[in-house]
Amino acid sequence: MAVAISLSERGRGRTAPNPNVGCIIVNNGHVVGRGWTQPGGRPHAEAMALAEAGDAAHGGTAYVTLEPCFHRSSRGPACSALLREAGISRMVVATQDPDQRTDGRGAAMLEQAGIEVRTGVMRAKARAAMAGFFARQALGRPHVTLKLATSLDGQIARADGESQWITGLQARAHTHLERARHDAILVGRGTVKADNPRLDVRLAGLEDRSPIRFMLGSGNAPDGWNSIAAPQDIAGIPEVDLLMIEGGARTASAFLAADLVDRLLLYRAPVLIGAGKAALADIGLGSLSDAHERWRLIETRMLGPDRMELYERTRAA
Amino acid sequence: MAVAISLSERGRGRTAPNPNVGCIIVNNGHVVGRGWTQPGGRPHAEAMALAEAGDAAHGGTAYVTLEPCFHRSSRGPACSALLREAGISRMVVATQDPDQRTDGRGAAMLEQAGIEVRTGVMRAKARAAMAGFFARQALGRPHVTLKLATSLDGQIARADGESQWITGLQARAHTHLERARHDAILVGRGTVKADNPRLDVRLAGLEDRSPIRFMLGSGNAPDGWNSIAAPQDIAGIPEVDLLMIEGGARTASAFLAADLVDRLLLYRAPVLIGAGKAALADIGLGSLSDAHERWRLIETRMLGPDRMELYERTRAA
Repeated sequence: MAVAISLSERGRGRTAPNPNVGCIIVNNGHVVGRGWTQPGGRPHAEAMALAEAGDAAHGGTAYVTLEPCFHRSSRGPACSALLREAGISRMVVATQDPDQRTDGRGAAMLEQAGIEVRTGVMRAKARAAMAGFFARQALGRPHVTLKLATSLDGQIARADGESQWITGLQARAHTHLERARHDAILVGRGTVKADNPRLDVRLAGLEDRSPIRFMLGSGNAPDGWNSIAAPQDIAGIPEVDLLMIEGGARTASAFLAADLVDRLLLYRAPVLIGAGKAALADIGLGSLSDAHERWRLIETRMLGPDRMELYERTRAA
Repeated sequence: MAVAISLSERGRGRTAPNPNVGCIIVNNGHVVGRGWTQPGGRPHAEAMALAEAGDAAHGGTAYVTLEPCFHRSSRGPACSALLREAGISRMVVATQDPDQRTDGRGAAMLEQAGIEVRTGVMRAKARAAMAGFFARQALGRPHVTLKLATSLDGQIARADGESQWITGLQARAHTHLERARHDAILVGRGTVKADNPRLDVRLAGLEDRSPIRFMLGSGNAPDGWNSIAAPQDIAGIPEVDLLMIEGGARTASAFLAADLVDRLLLYRAPVLIGAGKAALADIGLGSLSDAHERWRLIETRMLGPDRMELYERTRAA
């Protein structure tokens, strides 16, 4: 399943509104097929893995990060039917598909066909890999990552605005990788006016992964930009399930105040700035006690001299 | 040597102006004596270890974190002489004593007496454990630790001043342990006026370790407080080799602006505050490029929900 989850990451940021599923088919101890949801959402991961496996799928085990779809679509047959027809004898599934057109019926159909189905293997990891799809299903809006790059004392620039560079090359390359993993990026009107940032993916081989650009604010957006007037409007953006917020402080704070941030991506350089520009403005915090138990550290690593920290918003399931 | 360094830590913050040395004597594979510099600076670590070992020191190996002193004092004999007289046959020393009354002569005398002497074992760790002594010798002032306890966005309080509590119980207990490892603690005049903080060590068994309290600022200090007018005045404080700065932002910034901070002790709670009080004010930074390559992360660990990070000022040796 760990391999299937890795495969699913290949589609991250490119499959909305479809989930970025990963699938691996094993037969007699050999990997005979691998698949992941293709850009735009089709083919599905299972269809791709089955095509690669051909006859070798017969009697094999399919590991898939999401319950195979039950519903036929104009764009292709249901994966549960494809798996049955290919003669798969055992299914290992990370998590049930909450889409009401499937919602357990894909697994039930396979079991009725005599296929052994086990569900719930590496469920949390699989859900994290498909966070955009699950946020859209559960919250009716994209999954939101807020990126902040600061000094040790939480500043994003000197008082005169100088901010290039606080973090180093490795941290900036990691930011570009994160951009490639999102459907869209959003910055505030002030950042657009001041920097007209490209927000593209400048990593060899991933240039075509540059996400759609959004501006938060009223007024016309420049060419190549879309805009929304308020953080809550993200729910209405079509085909964007993974949204990354890149600045500035007022935009970040508006999303935090609306409790619309699911993932906090911090890059911290080992420098002190002192009087400068703080990473955040007012986030509507009522008291310090309200600030606690909202964020949980889930990953940290060094990127050259800088430290990356990833926090997840804790929400009642 | 690792054990000797651990023993030396027992005296940290209590031996100034003497170094907090650690010593262990091993004979035939058995530990026969352990010693560390006692409060006030005497007995020395070697004298204590030799007293514990008695005749068992004869033919043994002494591991000591600092070259044994060469000079006689009115307070006791030179440790190099004591070690020779006890019949130690081998010495392992972490680092040479820069005190000009010894400065290699302790080791030379022992070698002339036919004792094998090896110097430089775990030198960096030993120097870090005796940082106060080495700062006083090399820089003519105490070693300075700046403690900051902040939110993820670098704030130390809400805009209305609410700051209790950002960090949790474990981080606060760790701060008390750090206090016990310093000779003195300093805060700014504003902090004294606002909070009249106790700055004592509230850890069972370590209550007597509470350091001397200093206030930075002009005017009279309250009872139980000493004061200095400017950061540079720390050089003139007698018998304080390890100084901890605990706040507030202006005091921390004054020491940073004067480049008088050697060690940055950060406690970060997984909370966001937004508009609040920043950890630092103006630290006199000329440009961002000047901020780089000054701090190196040397330790990090979780303290309950909070993260502790220890940075060291990189200085040309």
